[in-house]
This record gives sequence, C-alpha cells and structure tokens, in this order.
Amino acid sequence: MKKLTFLVLTSIAFFACKTEQKQTTTASKTYTEAAYKQDSTQIKKLFSIALTEGKSYEWLRDLTQNIGSRLSGSEGAAKSVIWGEKLMKEVGLDSVWLQPVMVPHWVRGEKEVANYEFNGEKINVPICALGGSIATPTNGITAKVIEVKNIEEAKKLGDKANGKIVFFNGAFDNTLINTFRAYGGCVAQRFAGAATVGKFGAKGVIVRSMTNGIDDYPHTGSMGYGDIPKEEYIPAAAISSRAAENLSKHLKENPNIEFYFKQSCENLADAPSHNVVGEIKGSEYPDKIMVIGGHLDSWDLGDGAHDDGTGIVQSLEVAYLLKKNNIQPKNTIRIVFFMNEENGLRGATEYARLAKENNELHIGALESDAGGHTPRGFSIDANERNIQLVQSWKNLLAPYGLHDITAGGSGADIGPLKDDYVTLVGYRPDSQRYFDYHHAATDTFDKVNKRELELGSASMASIVYLMDKYLYNKETLKP
Amino acid sequence: MKKLTFLVLTSIAFFACKTEQKQTTTASKTYTEAAYKQDSTQIKKLFSIALTEGKSYEWLRDLTQNIGSRLSGSEGAAKSVIWGEKLMKEVGLDSVWLQPVMVPHWVRGEKEVANYEFNGEKINVPICALGGSIATPTNGITAKVIEVKNIEEAKKLGDKANGKIVFFNGAFDNTLINTFRAYGGCVAQRFAGAATVGKFGAKGVIVRSMTNGIDDYPHTGSMGYGDIPKEEYIPAAAISSRAAENLSKHLKENPNIEFYFKQSCENLADAPSHNVVGEIKGSEYPDKIMVIGGHLDSWDLGDGAHDDGTGIVQSLEVAYLLKKNNIQPKNTIRIVFFMNEENGLRGATEYARLAKENNELHIGALESDAGGHTPRGFSIDANERNIQLVQSWKNLLAPYGLHDITAGGSGADIGPLKDDYVTLVGYRPDSQRYFDYHHAATDTFDKVNKRELELGSASMASIVYLMDKYLYNKETLKP
Repeated sequence: MKKLTFLVLTSIAFFACKTEQKQTTTASKTYTEAAYKQDSTQIKKLFSIALTEGKSYEWLRDLTQNIGSRLSGSEGAAKSVIWGEKLMKEVGLDSVWLQPVMVPHWVRGEKEVANYEFNGEKINVPICALGGSIATPTNGITAKVIEVKNIEEAKKLGDKANGKIVFFNGAFDNTLINTFRAYGGCVAQRFAGAATVGKFGAKGVIVRSMTNGIDDYPHTGSMGYGDIPKEEYIPAAAISSRAAENLSKHLKENPNIEFYFKQSCENLADAPSHNVVGEIKGSEYPDKIMVIGGHLDSWDLGDGAHDDGTGIVQSLEVAYLLKKNNIQPKNTIRIVFFMNEENGLRGATEYARLAKENNELHIGALESDAGGHTPRGFSIDANERNIQLVQSWKNLLAPYGLHDITAGGSGADIGPLKDDYVTLVGYRPDSQRYFDYHHAATDTFDKVNKRELELGSASMASIVYLMDKYLYNKETLKP
Repeated sequence: MKKLTFLVLTSIAFFACKTEQKQTTTASKTYTEAAYKQDSTQIKKLFSIALTEGKSYEWLRDLTQNIGSRLSGSEGAAKSVIWGEKLMKEVGLDSVWLQPVMVPHWVRGEKEVANYEFNGEKINVPICALGGSIATPTNGITAKVIEVKNIEEAKKLGDKANGKIVFFNGAFDNTLINTFRAYGGCVAQRFAGAATVGKFGAKGVIVRSMTNGIDDYPHTGSMGYGDIPKEEYIPAAAISSRAAENLSKHLKENPNIEFYFKQSCENLADAPSHNVVGEIKGSEYPDKIMVIGGHLDSWDLGDGAHDDGTGIVQSLEVAYLLKKNNIQPKNTIRIVFFMNEENGLRGATEYARLAKENNELHIGALESDAGGHTPRGFSIDANERNIQLVQSWKNLLAPYGLHDITAGGSGADIGPLKDDYVTLVGYRPDSQRYFDYHHAATDTFDKVNKRELELGSASMASIVYLMDKYLYNKETLKP
C-alpha cells in the first residue's frame, strides 16, 4: 500500500509503463502484429461459437435435472461418472477413460430436526448435518448453548463448554468485495469447530451457515475430526443464517435456552468411484499435458449446479470450442472431471499420484470451481515468468470482461499438480451471488444464466488457446 | 482496428503509456499522495457502509412488492410518486419537491390473445400489445403472415404487405458481448415496425420479443406511429421469442397460416404526474448542480424491478451514503426520480426545460437505468478534458470491479441536460442477464441480488464523490 501510494504520488503513468513494458518484453519474444491479429481473431471466434452454438447449458440441465446431486459414494455420483464418460465420447475426444479411486462414503440419513423453546414458543430451526459428522444419539441432543464467534474464542472455552452445545456464529465480513475472502475468514468454524471443542466435553456443535446473506437454508459442507481420539467426536450441524441471528438474540434474553437437535448421518466404508478423463492429443508435443477440469461430485442438498456442475460443463466445452474452431492444440489437452473435491479430494490426489507414477509432464492446468457467473478474470499460480506472460495477455482478454488477471491460488483439484514449472490457473467469475446457493438446497439449474455460463467456457477456451501457444515450460524457461 | 494493431505492433506499452500519461497530466493538477489516500479511503468507506448498512434492497422490496408496476398515468405510478417523496424526506434531504408534468396515458385493457392453426393443431401464442399501439377491432385480426428480419426489408414490402400481418423476426446478435448493443440492433422493429408497413395496407404487426434468449414471455416496450396519417395506424404486438421461432418454422412449411390476435389497448388523454426531486445543498457552490437519477415509471407486465426500480433506489442511496459517511458535497446534489422514461420521456424533458427556464447551472449528472447487476463501470458523455479526468480515476475504481470507464452515451433521462460543459455519466452494470427480464412479467424483485444492488449504489456514490471534488466546469475549464 505504501509502495502503491508512493508510485501514485510520483506518477501513475510511470507505474503503468513499468508494468506494461515488463509485459511487452515478455510478450515481444512471441509477438508480431500477425500473431496478435490471429490471437484476437481466434478469441473472438471462440466467444462467438460459445454464444451461438454452445452446448454447456443443455449439458448442465441434463446433469442437474436428470441426475441431480452427486455426493461421493452416492448413486448420483455413480450415474454422473457414466454420464461424463458418455458425453466426453460424444464430443469426440481422442480417448476417454476412467481412473478408479476409493472415496469417503458419508450418508445424511433422515432429515435433521432442531428446535428450542423461547418465551413459551417452540422455535423450529432449519438445520443440516455437516459432511463427515457423526450422528446424535437416536433421541437427539438437548443442552444449553454457548455462543462463540470464531475458533480462537472456542479454544479458550475449556470447562465452560462441558455438557454444552457450542454455537459458532461468526458471520461473513460483507465489506470484502470478493466473497471468497469472506468465506475464507469463517470456514474454519465449520471445518474445525467440533474438533476444537470435543475435548472440552461439549455435546455438539451448531455452526452459522457460510453465506453472505440472511436466509432460511442451512448450507452444509465438510468438517473433520482430525486426529482427536474417537471418544471426543461430537455431532456438528449447520443452521440457517436467519436462525443463527435469532438464536443469538434469544440467548441474550435467556442464556438458559435448551437447544435440541437430532441427526442420523453416518460414515460408511470407503466406496469405489472414478475420475473421468478424456484428451485431445497434442499435434507437436503429445507428451506435454494441459489439464482443464472441475469436480463432478457435489453436496446432496441441491443439484450441484454452480458447485460444480458449471465447472464440469465449461471444462468439456473448452474441448468442444477448440474442435469447433478447428484449433489443433500443440500440447495434449486433457479434460478431467475430478471426483470427491467436496469431502476428501481423493480424485485430485489420485490423479496427481498417477501422473507422477507415469512420469507425465504437466505444463499447465486450468480449473473452474467458483460458480458459473459472469467472467471477471483468472488467478495464476506459476513461476514469475509465466505469471508475467499470462498478464501480458490482458489486452486480448479485457474486451470480454476479463480484467482481473492476478497472481494467486488456482483450484483445489489441480493444486496437487504444483511444481516449479507447471502453470496453474483458476477461472474467476463474479463472486457476488455464489454463496447465496453454495452447499444449499438452492444450488439449482435455474440459478445459472445461459450467457454467463457460455462466456465462462469461452474465457477458459481463450486462455487455454494462449497457454497452449505461448506457455514457457521446463525446457523453454532455461535462459 | 488498423490503428490498434499498428500500435500493438509498435508497442502495447507505448500505447498504454501515452494514455496513462495523458491521464496523469490531467490528474496531477489535483493529485497529491494525501488526496489519493483520502479518496481511496472515502471510497472504501462508501462501499463498506453500502454493504453493511445499505437500505436500497428493502426500499426496492417495498416499491416492487407493495406498489408493483408503475406505467405512466396508472394508479401505481401515482402511488410511486407519493412513495418517492416520503422516502426522500425520510432520508433527510435538505428539500424535497414534486415537478408536475403531463404524461401519455396508455392502457393495455384485457389480456391479449393470439393463435393460429398448424397441421390441424391450434397453437396459442404468448403475446402482448406494444405500448402506444391501438387496439385491434373487437373481434381481433385474422390474416396471412409475411416475415421480415428488419426495418429495411419491411420498407421494400410494398403491396406484398397489403392485407397481411407483418412479422418482424430479427433476433438479437448474441455474439455481441454487451447485450445493449444487440438490443440497439433490433429495437427499431418494435418501435417503427407499424409506422413502416401501415402505408402498405398491412392489417397488423407482430414483433419478436427483444431478448437474448428463447423464452415464453412477451416483452413489451414503446412503439410510435410518427407523423403517418391516422388511417395508416395499425395494431402492433410482441410475441415471445420461442413463439417467434416456432411461427417462422411453421411458415416455411405452410406460408398460408392464418394468424389471429386481439388486443383492446387504448391511448387515453394525457394524465397529470410528477418528477420527484430532492437535494442536498452544496456547501461551497450551492448554485452548481449534479443530478443523480433513474426513472420511477415502469412497464405494466412485471414489477419494474431492474427497469428501473434499482436505478431509483440506488440514486437515493447515493445521498444516504454521502450523509452516512459525513461527506458534505461542495456542489448541490440533486436526486431525481424521473417520470415517463418508458413511453415519452416527458419527465426528463420537463426537468431540462425548467432547469433552462430557471437558469440552473448543471455541472454533472449520473443515471442508473441499465439494471441492478454487478458493477462493470461508467460511460461518459462530456468534453475531452472531463472524460480524461474521469478515466484518470480508474485505479481508484478498479478494486470494485469498475474497469470499463469509457467515452459514450449516458442515459435517456439526463440526455436533455447536455451542453458543452456538463459531464453526463451512465452507470454500467453487467449486461448479461438484463434482457432476460426487460419489459417482461419476469422483471420482479427476486431477480435482484442484494450485494450487486448495493455495490451499484456504492459505485455511484464513489463517482459522485469524485465528480463533486474534481470536475472541471464552465469556469475552471478555461485555460
């Protein structure tokens, strides 16, 4: 910040020029007028095809409405693997195969129930078990409630938590423009809440749903017990943000509220499942691989439309758009529908393990797992030279609303591929609406806009086209 | 384009520097590190307040759900004037008043009906009269259909249109990233279709709805007969995009289809209405005025949520945010809820007429009439010096997704204020979803996202803050 204001003081232009020149030095190695013309023309074509002949919207309708939710180990997940393999073949990829992987198999059981009495009135609370949680005793749990705002407060509870239900009520910081940052600031309550207070003898944990707004839907998500002893495992659930607001208010008037909740979820033995993989062989470097993917599994409450059905159909549409536009990639383009991102990352881990075992050279990877909303940009996790290279494309991408080309994280499923040479990129659509639906019953097809989805596919195809053409790899990076 | 590629060839950086330096020359006049710090801090505050204490979403809920549609001359429009005056007073503007204006009073009458027989089956067509159209005869119109794709084709029809219903079926160009450009390429069919073919003895006009997608809703909107003789007036209606696609297909199989439609709309005598105006007096230049506004009227099919309820509540929220943030504007900030943008622009015309009559000096104006979606930028209609000034703020606005700061049009309601010195700005949210709802029964409150709406209010408040502080006016522009 200090540096920024200084630069602004001395000259915004100077700062801008420095950046620009760096980028051009990088780009100029590859750039001629003809190349720029060709690239901007190809990108325009990719967008035009996506917006007039795109398939992603109908693919998503089929996945979300004919299969629906796809929690790892579920029948929906198994169906989606067959669906994905069939669709990749229809799109005409050179080869399509399944990668076997064992996944956690957690089941929700019957619908959860929660309520408490306040001023003689019974208040019903929208609640759902967190993925990975154990069940309550058959008759449920009834206990007094102790409210905290974050994990740090919870760590200090000690005996105060004994025999209580610990209520994690830390809300999103709505002043953060990027809602994923607000999520990052709260999600530890959901993931580590139970593991934090189990040792204090707490009877259970209820967590405020991870969302920006005030709604009546519980938003589920993964939690873990880490390495705490089994006897310290306690049930954990999410309650709607409105119920959390009300409970907090009611507790101020009556700290002795007895909260009741009941859930019958269960962790079953690991189940067999698959990553779905298909590729277009590279014309010049068939052994150099670029992965484009999202995750096929979803939570069980909605239809997994934005998380991550959109990433799945956009990833496959990248291949469809390249073929439709007669772009033959130099490197091998591999589309991967990863299994089990939500509660284990087993698919991604297995994909990376096999890549290593088979000495595959991955030069790049692109993931779409931030929803199907209108395009904003890309986040790049790579060596400095490739970060500068990707940022030098900003004039080619800006006409499509892709202005945020920043260094940062990429995606959970491609993360395990990280090394000193691979360029990992995360597609970044607008984040404002995402947590309205995230992990809730409201994550359904009707929340996805056709054009926004297609613009995302074209944005991804455009950067894949440029990465395939220009990316520095292990050899070319050498001075 | 030629110029662009040439510049790209010679150096992207050079091009960028030139632009940047121009901007800094402009900005440097006003800019110190302290000023930049203060501005970025104030803007951050405006966004934080909007996202945590914003009122616009609840105001919009009230306007759309308790009043609903607000077509000029209707009871809803009258109620919205009272609503607006009351709300401006609640927000604590220094003074609030109504500007009387006579507005067109068109009424739809009973629900329109349309159908035709194809292969022995009766096809019902979702249809609605266009605003300003005359009715059909009481028994409706039945005639053969002649299809055209645009006004130019229609102009050449001559006798071929005699006794026919002319079907304007030009679709949006979905390859245009900005959907308003696609709308601009089609809307002449809706506005001028009837006036174009009336003289050929056509019996009526049906127009494909102005929308990007394929849906089952007719999208209404204004049409005019211009100065053609009354006897050439023919009824005009919009049909849903899906119905248009089907009719076009069916006509290829059977050109003799007899299309029936019936509408009982009517143009009544002009009705009295009002612009709602409120202001915060300027602390240094009370006689220099900046207008912030949207239009209070809407079409009658939906609730006028995105068009233009969002612009109304965002405009008032600008005043709320400035007050809440203890920013006392140097110039007078005037909030205007314009009446009759949709079918006459009478409110805007009267506002500008009065401004001239009273020798008011307007130095700037900002309009929000492009929906309540996530912020993208601003379009500036001003002298070169002020365009460069506004563009020099891009580093202050970029953190909020406001990257598109371009020279161009502003808005219909502030347009009449144009002169050599005033700076007219149009707020530009993302356009992808806008025409899904535009002028249709689907333009309802549930389509508006709370954060996106609030981000828009804060974006507008931020540029108003900067315009108030830095804008060159008639005096300061002098060399």
